[in-house]
Amino acid sequence: MKIAVIGTGMVGRAFVTRLTGLGHDVVLGTRDPQATLARTEPDHLGTPPLSTWFADNPDARLVTMAEAGAHGEVVINATAGAHAIAALELVGAENLAGKVLLDLSLPLDLSAGWPPRLSVANDDSLGEQIQRAFPDARVVKTLNTVQYETMLDPARLPGRHNLFVSGDDADAKKAVTQLLGEFGWPADVVIDLGDITTARATEMYSRLLFTLQVHFGDFDTNIALVRPAK
Amino acid sequence: MKIAVIGTGMVGRAFVTRLTGLGHDVVLGTRDPQATLARTEPDHLGTPPLSTWFADNPDARLVTMAEAGAHGEVVINATAGAHAIAALELVGAENLAGKVLLDLSLPLDLSAGWPPRLSVANDDSLGEQIQRAFPDARVVKTLNTVQYETMLDPARLPGRHNLFVSGDDADAKKAVTQLLGEFGWPADVVIDLGDITTARATEMYSRLLFTLQVHFGDFDTNIALVRPAK
Repeated sequence: MKIAVIGTGMVGRAFVTRLTGLGHDVVLGTRDPQATLARTEPDHLGTPPLSTWFADNPDARLVTMAEAGAHGEVVINATAGAHAIAALELVGAENLAGKVLLDLSLPLDLSAGWPPRLSVANDDSLGEQIQRAFPDARVVKTLNTVQYETMLDPARLPGRHNLFVSGDDADAKKAVTQLLGEFGWPADVVIDLGDITTARATEMYSRLLFTLQVHFGDFDTNIALVRPAK
Repeated sequence: MKIAVIGTGMVGRAFVTRLTGLGHDVVLGTRDPQATLARTEPDHLGTPPLSTWFADNPDARLVTMAEAGAHGEVVINATAGAHAIAALELVGAENLAGKVLLDLSLPLDLSAGWPPRLSVANDDSLGEQIQRAFPDARVVKTLNTVQYETMLDPARLPGRHNLFVSGDDADAKKAVTQLLGEFGWPADVVIDLGDITTARATEMYSRLLFTLQVHFGDFDTNIALVRPAK
């Protein structure tokens, strides 16, 4: 499948490697490919420059946001939430129209320390903001409840554990669930919470995820729903 | 132990029955005991009048908020979150001073429909508001991630599943964890998230809990933390 990954941080890079390994036709979108490749120092988060990653992923294709949008049948938003809408505007509303837009970002605001507050919560969500900004895109919020390594390899954690999807388009959720299956998530652990407003639930859950990160000292926690025996 | 339960709804009643069954010396606090007992109709939530419940719990003791505060070594806030601080003001700051105040309430605002929004979230929490309003109380936020029947009988759900405590006072959290043990929660499933600001995590989690209630049609869900095998 033709897939565009938006965002060149650790998350976007890991998605490109994994999706390419699964046989997909993947491009990685960035604002200015030349400038991104020219960097030789880690960024402010300590992420090594992309050129380092390219040494291990020589076949990866770095393209502009708009080229990525034109390429992808599925577009994966792996940007930091604060930049998500600006980045997707560069991808282009016309390129996103009718496409599955898998949004895994969280609206983190680091200005008040750690664990991060959310820039939007309770009465709205980043998933809804993105769907409103790109009404013709078929937004599916998912994967935002686990760390990126777990997103791409759920068997890192033992046994059954759950994931959620939110979105207005049933077929788009089906397509995303299929892709999650390729990553290793069995279909029956993926809970369809409902329309895109249910993204509030998983985005607000992130406060617990980050609080547990402080408690355990790592991000290696997911949750399994526990229900009465039938 | 002398325990005061504040709030005569389904949650408060269930706590009185369970705690009495465990051998504790329990009172149930309400604004106006005579008026509460005189009611013969269900309330606006459909809760049967307290007089009906008394038929099955003839030894229960209904007292004023202030009498409840004077009685309890541990005070359990089982009021609806919107009324929590007003109710606790009637219990009395002087009665709460030095006491363990187990707060299981959620700041639900039903005005925008279901699932409920929170009246406070993200930058503050009801747990923190209560601690600020009663600085000499030893507030412990817990149990707010499960439905009240599960609070009091975790074996309703199979296997291991988790609960959280938040609070500034380590001894108060220890006392609460002990009480949770009497309900059936093993100490090692109770995660101490940290100080009272971590109540934001579990209060914000409630959006997922209520969204799952819509999905499954019941409140019988808890979560188990899934972590890498050691």
